[in-house]
Amino acid sequence: MDNAAFPVDPDHVSADAVRGLIDHAILKPELTRSDVDAQLDEAAAYRVFSVCVRPSDVAYAVGRLTGTGVGVGTVIGFPHGTTSTAAKVAESLQALADGAFELDMVQNIGAAKSGDWERVEQDVRAVVDAAGSTVVKVILETAFLTDDEIVAASRAAQRAGAAFVKTSTGFAGGGATADHIRLMRATVGPDTGVKASGGVRGLDTFLEMVEAGANRIGTSASARILDEVAHRAETGTASALGDDSTSY
Amino acid sequence: MDNAAFPVDPDHVSADAVRGLIDHAILKPELTRSDVDAQLDEAAAYRVFSVCVRPSDVAYAVGRLTGTGVGVGTVIGFPHGTTSTAAKVAESLQALADGAFELDMVQNIGAAKSGDWERVEQDVRAVVDAAGSTVVKVILETAFLTDDEIVAASRAAQRAGAAFVKTSTGFAGGGATADHIRLMRATVGPDTGVKASGGVRGLDTFLEMVEAGANRIGTSASARILDEVAHRAETGTASALGDDSTSY
Repeated sequence: MDNAAFPVDPDHVSADAVRGLIDHAILKPELTRSDVDAQLDEAAAYRVFSVCVRPSDVAYAVGRLTGTGVGVGTVIGFPHGTTSTAAKVAESLQALADGAFELDMVQNIGAAKSGDWERVEQDVRAVVDAAGSTVVKVILETAFLTDDEIVAASRAAQRAGAAFVKTSTGFAGGGATADHIRLMRATVGPDTGVKASGGVRGLDTFLEMVEAGANRIGTSASARILDEVAHRAETGTASALGDDSTSY
Repeated sequence: MDNAAFPVDPDHVSADAVRGLIDHAILKPELTRSDVDAQLDEAAAYRVFSVCVRPSDVAYAVGRLTGTGVGVGTVIGFPHGTTSTAAKVAESLQALADGAFELDMVQNIGAAKSGDWERVEQDVRAVVDAAGSTVVKVILETAFLTDDEIVAASRAAQRAGAAFVKTSTGFAGGGATADHIRLMRATVGPDTGVKASGGVRGLDTFLEMVEAGANRIGTSASARILDEVAHRAETGTASALGDDSTSY
């Protein structure tokens, strides 16, 4: 794959290009089964790439989404990342047994802040090894990190065999920024994915992240984003990256 | 044990009574090893009952606190509670292997909000079974719950064999309230513990929680609370429950 290629033409935004990049997040702890149902059905209706659900919802979501073409991913060590490596591995194995097709793990943030990159790397590698051929994304939680730490964490994840580095859990008071995405993309190069997540709540931010180098977007605003794509197509807005008021 | 007895005399607050109720929380994901060291050393200096550390710090904390008399507890499924039961069990077993002496698990909040009390109970029971003779506290995350849900969750935890019910993780935007503590104490009776946590940052709040029925307090402000006890003893404040300005 060539993750560095800009995967959406900003001058001709297609719904299929946008939906193909979306991991629809269904992660809040207080969501009921009924809330989860509504979100899963919305994800199916909008044909996003995948949903990212709570670990205890994986088997249920796989059942409900069978035949829709929407993948079911989940999170590991979420959202603090400071559990034991053994717990992350066991959580991963259960998620895979339940049918998860991608795993978004949180790095050990405390170890990262301590500069213990060896420990960060070993923790990621254990999950990557447990995941086998399954894609593992490593959430750095960039809101807590300096630029130097973002670079070191991206490298540690890459050395450990992660398929993606990802900015945020969405639960740390700060989400993806275009500057962080550019830094992560510049660090990992074209062959590792970069996922922007946290605070992506509209099409302009979505496209800003893609232009900065993201090739996957985590959001709970999939419907709004895809509705905006449809609206701009209808109203003939030439560039979805331009000012919202620029329509013809 | 008779947890319902008011364990601190509000008119004669003794430092030993206060410190004996404290689980000193060292849980923020971004804490470095050096931050953790400082907190562990403070907990030892103030001789609190225990520290509650991140799972990946348990073995280290046990080593550093050996000989101090301060116990090392940890958290399970923290802070969302919505991981798989298998992950919680594996996390518990690793924590016990690392030397944890108490486990504060988060209930499956989504299942609770869905009214699936059978599932909530089974999830807790699996951890209680894994823990053997080790004390398990169940964090309800009361900020997300109605009063009826707090009652049902307390009963589910009790049926599953939990030693304590506990209000909060400290990461959900709301902490312990005296009303919730009273409700939990009234629900579980005298033979199950009630732990107040989240937002207990001074002696007055500490004593308010104890008076409401808490027999354990989770706080990261142990030093401040115990310094206040010492200060009031020195200045001869008759009632630590009274107005702060009332001194003689």
